Amino acid sequence: MTFDFDAWRAAKLARVEAALDGFIAAQSPADLGLVMRYGVLNGGKRLRALLVLAASEATGGNADAAMRAACAVEMIHAYSLIHDDMPCMDNDVLRRGKPTVHVAYGEAQALLAGDALQALAFEVLTPDEGVMSASVQATLCRQLARASGVGGMAGGQAIDLASVSKTLTEAQLRRMHELKTGALLKASVEMGAACGVLDGTRASHGALGLRAHLAAYGAAVGLAFQVVDDMLDVIADAALLGKTAGKDAAHNKPTYVALMGLDAAETYAEKLLAQALTALDACALPNDAALRELAIRLVKRQS
Amino acid sequence: MTFDFDAWRAAKLARVEAALDGFIAAQSPADLGLVMRYGVLNGGKRLRALLVLAASEATGGNADAAMRAACAVEMIHAYSLIHDDMPCMDNDVLRRGKPTVHVAYGEAQALLAGDALQALAFEVLTPDEGVMSASVQATLCRQLARASGVGGMAGGQAIDLASVSKTLTEAQLRRMHELKTGALLKASVEMGAACGVLDGTRASHGALGLRAHLAAYGAAVGLAFQVVDDMLDVIADAALLGKTAGKDAAHNKPTYVALMGLDAAETYAEKLLAQALTALDACALPNDAALRELAIRLVKRQS
Repeated sequence: MTFDFDAWRAAKLARVEAALDGFIAAQSPADLGLVMRYGVLNGGKRLRALLVLAASEATGGNADAAMRAACAVEMIHAYSLIHDDMPCMDNDVLRRGKPTVHVAYGEAQALLAGDALQALAFEVLTPDEGVMSASVQATLCRQLARASGVGGMAGGQAIDLASVSKTLTEAQLRRMHELKTGALLKASVEMGAACGVLDGTRASHGALGLRAHLAAYGAAVGLAFQVVDDMLDVIADAALLGKTAGKDAAHNKPTYVALMGLDAAETYAEKLLAQALTALDACALPNDAALRELAIRLVKRQS
Repeated sequence: MTFDFDAWRAAKLARVEAALDGFIAAQSPADLGLVMRYGVLNGGKRLRALLVLAASEATGGNADAAMRAACAVEMIHAYSLIHDDMPCMDNDVLRRGKPTVHVAYGEAQALLAGDALQALAFEVLTPDEGVMSASVQATLCRQLARASGVGGMAGGQAIDLASVSKTLTEAQLRRMHELKTGALLKASVEMGAACGVLDGTRASHGALGLRAHLAAYGAAVGLAFQVVDDMLDVIADAALLGKTAGKDAAHNKPTYVALMGLDAAETYAEKLLAQALTALDACALPNDAALRELAIRLVKRQS
């Protein structure tokens, strides 16, 4: 039986949207919840959530725990977009075809909604009882916090800000992206696995090897995502992309395309895809079709 | 033997500063760590950290876990000040006698440093091994996330923003402050206790009653703090206060002093102090002198 990725994705997306909708209350002090919902429930591709869910399924994870992890990662991603779009950062007005949060609700609300979404991500990972063991809760919080902070996403964004109008080497560019987008994508895979066989309370003999291979898959996927992102910023249609195209060049940001040219960037993305699939083969997981397809679709995407 | 609160505080403060210094690495991508350090290591009074440590000592808590909880709460507090001071929020230029973070480093760095500090708070609560059980890690993350987010500090700040130039009832004002400053102060007490007898792995028969009494102490202390804050904004000297005085009135912010007048606000603060001490008596903890003195000093403070 062949794996129907599109059906899998559609089913998962419906559940992720419903779960996010449930976690972010519209009823809230001074409409803060409405602003948070605007920033999250906006038709994103949910790549990070899908990576969590695919990794959890591949490792036999607890589905409820994995859904919480998936939503938490999407909340962190959404808050980072809200803050990155603000005038003091990228000053972007369009996101997925709609006005950015600060355009729609003002800067103060955008700042606060981002802050509250980061807190909510950790709240979602630490429910009162039953759903997840304390061990899985602590592990997921640890993984998400490390991937989001100064040694991950926020640190990468700091490098990005400091790199405008500078020429970076490939190593410097890779380091920036490993932190800025790679860390959270890699953490998505690892958090999914933490709901499954890599749950610390039942980690098996082969856990160390599996952890390393999954981390290699996540790292390759994370970097490939960014290389393709840089390519799409140059070649894609703004309407299809749903955000302002060509903004990297307009902002003098270093990109893989600027560094190596479009053809070499495409070759590099293919190489990273091959690395990801090799790492996945080494995991030898019984149920890895979604992880495999996610890597392939990510590199072949048009938007 | 009488309790020497000043010696206790001095010893704790030295350890908190050293711990914060150790947790926030100066070495970081694009100087982000330096900006975070500027925002945290600035001579704050560390009231929240002291509440955590006092509550932990009163309940026989693990000192290493409590120090991590104390630092995490201070990181959340510091990030909130950094973001609140930004031009799109309170637009304040002076904090504890020094230029605010966005004045010193720019808005983008201030935004990022705040974001990274929130993530670091949860990182500090989830160390790899040994220091704290997974159960205590999960509990502390849960308490901190709930107190920081839409149902706590961020929600209160949203009400604050929406209340400028409005007349609030006392109930509305209390609700705003219960969230904006009260939730994190109350959580500080509860997190300290979660390192002690209220650690879920060894909660005793009397835990429910103790939890309620400690929560009442924390709530009264949190509200008293805000009432005194409002009074000091009117009567204190800016040099002593270390921040811009009179800014509530200048920003048309509703305060207890505006609502009830200075004398009634002072009477109210004394009443809240009495409530806090009564709740503490009901806890019947063997070692509660620091919690008692903290409540008293907080209401009697001049800055």
